[in-house]
Amino acid sequence: MRLPVILFLTAISTVLAGSVPIQTLVFPSETSTSYVEMVPLKPINLKAFTLCMRVATELSGEREIILFAYRTQYYDELNVWRELDGRYSFALSGGSVVFSVPDLGAMQTHFCVTWDSSSGASALFMDGRKSLTKLYKKGHTIPPGGKVIIGQDPDSYLGEFDAKQSFVGEINDVNMWDSVLSDSTIKDMFSGKRVPRGNIFDWETIQLTTNGAVEVVNTEL
Amino acid sequence: MRLPVILFLTAISTVLAGSVPIQTLVFPSETSTSYVEMVPLKPINLKAFTLCMRVATELSGEREIILFAYRTQYYDELNVWRELDGRYSFALSGGSVVFSVPDLGAMQTHFCVTWDSSSGASALFMDGRKSLTKLYKKGHTIPPGGKVIIGQDPDSYLGEFDAKQSFVGEINDVNMWDSVLSDSTIKDMFSGKRVPRGNIFDWETIQLTTNGAVEVVNTEL
Amino acid sequence: MRLPVILFLTAISTVLAGSVPIQTLVFPSETSTSYVEMVPLKPINLKAFTLCMRVATELSGEREIILFAYRTQYYDELNVWRELDGRYSFALSGGSVVFSVPDLGAMQTHFCVTWDSSSGASALFMDGRKSLTKLYKKGHTIPPGGKVIIGQDPDSYLGEFDAKQSFVGEINDVNMWDSVLSDSTIKDMFSGKRVPRGNIFDWETIQLTTNGAVEVVNTEL
Repeated sequence: MRLPVILFLTAISTVLAGSVPIQTLVFPSETSTSYVEMVPLKPINLKAFTLCMRVATELSGEREIILFAYRTQYYDELNVWRELDGRYSFALSGGSVVFSVPDLGAMQTHFCVTWDSSSGASALFMDGRKSLTKLYKKGHTIPPGGKVIIGQDPDSYLGEFDAKQSFVGEINDVNMWDSVLSDSTIKDMFSGKRVPRGNIFDWETIQLTTNGAVEVVNTEL
Repeated sequence: MRLPVILFLTAISTVLAGSVPIQTLVFPSETSTSYVEMVPLKPINLKAFTLCMRVATELSGEREIILFAYRTQYYDELNVWRELDGRYSFALSGGSVVFSVPDLGAMQTHFCVTWDSSSGASALFMDGRKSLTKLYKKGHTIPPGGKVIIGQDPDSYLGEFDAKQSFVGEINDVNMWDSVLSDSTIKDMFSGKRVPRGNIFDWETIQLTTNGAVEVVNTEL
Repeated sequence: MRLPVILFLTAISTVLAGSVPIQTLVFPSETSTSYVEMVPLKPINLKAFTLCMRVATELSGEREIILFAYRTQYYDELNVWRELDGRYSFALSGGSVVFSVPDLGAMQTHFCVTWDSSSGASALFMDGRKSLTKLYKKGHTIPPGGKVIIGQDPDSYLGEFDAKQSFVGEINDVNMWDSVLSDSTIKDMFSGKRVPRGNIFDWETIQLTTNGAVEVVNTEL
């Protein structure tokens, strides 16, 4: 009689899923001053990672967009970009790996980046679908000691922002793990199932420090 | 009390699904030298087949792409192509059957080809959706005695490769059966459910021989 | 102990789903001679109907396509069309109701038409999604005494076919009911669930009379 109990609990958790509160970052307009700092749960010192977020923007055409920036004193250690030409990329202190994938838009996209130093395997996920794998920075380690921000690309330590690279739109559910999650886990996350919470960033418990014209809106998933 | 046990095992296998390891072939650039040879589980001597793979590529525009090649001494016995004009086709020793279906892209597509000699019925499947059926090579048999390779189109036995037809991108989960699987089985495979393993090629146990700049990356489904 | 039994039956039906045989009509090329006659289970005398089929075609651009024709001695009583301009329509003996919906293509689409004389409510369904409703021929009755054919548009009783209106591609699973099915039933049918079988046409038991170059291919759903 164990199973019916398990099924019952599963049913309950599914029903309650609609009442999970979530913070959402709204960047209403283009600025060189609005950003949010995210403090990691432990030092960022990575041989592998999965970084996910839900993102929506009306920016399009020839416009760079910074989606995530981790900067130490002298280097961009992990920056995620929409490029001028509409492709998506990430850069680990020098060079970058670029993917010709569908563009983001005004409808929310569940967007992830994965990287594994042991092979260099790099991939994007959009709404649970995986891109091709590219090989990039095999053997590299992402070093600790920097700051993570959403909304601006720092060309120095938390400074020299360029409005033309800023994020405009909505970002939430930013989570990061120090390992590569399986394809099926990322698909589950996209479809709203509960997965192990991020051990670098966990959006449910994160402390956010906002600067400039960013609104933190509370909604329910 | 049999059922709860079965369900319990199903539940366990679902939970563990995230930990199914899979080999992925990454062809990082255009070459006339990189390819992978796949050894079949039994001689290829076929009156029917289903061939499936997961494939992603940034190649587009006017570019042929070889997706699968089975060549005997004098003939291309089963070659699967993206044509110059973006259509998809397969050829059984002379001629080919061509389908105007959506193009592949940088996001992974689950791609299958089916053929049945008794009627000549030929179809493609993309992400579980079936194309129209065309009639091709009714009564034909695909003969044994050749080599199967991924990455290049051999114009002679394992030779005369043309970089302009080579595969660039990612291919995995290449499985082949000596029968036509049902539409619902192919749809299940696309959505990650377990289906009977290929009896010509079984990606879980396959021995791959790589040549040139091909990386075999291990990830988890 | 009720639940396990239900689950057990569900499991059985799922396992068996792969083995449902289905007849498929393949029209390989444009002709003015190939067509299939379908004999209804009872006289067509209708104040309402649901007509569904799975259809795939590579025809596109400026090309009419006849999808279903029910003709009595002097009138086209129920003809379903792709119009020259890519819109879809059906006509009940004079005039027609036209819908600007996505075009069909080489990947199979589950396509339905519904009409109810009491309000004139008319709608299309493509892959389970419902179009807007239009009002057409309120109070009309579709009369008995004609012939239903697939593949050609008869401009007289089973004659005067025009190759430029003929169907080329694949059609199967043509079912018809003398009532309007619910939206959810149509969605279930699209996703392969069992629904009450058609009482005008039931594809599982239908007798097909083929003429010209039409192939009837047997596959499995």
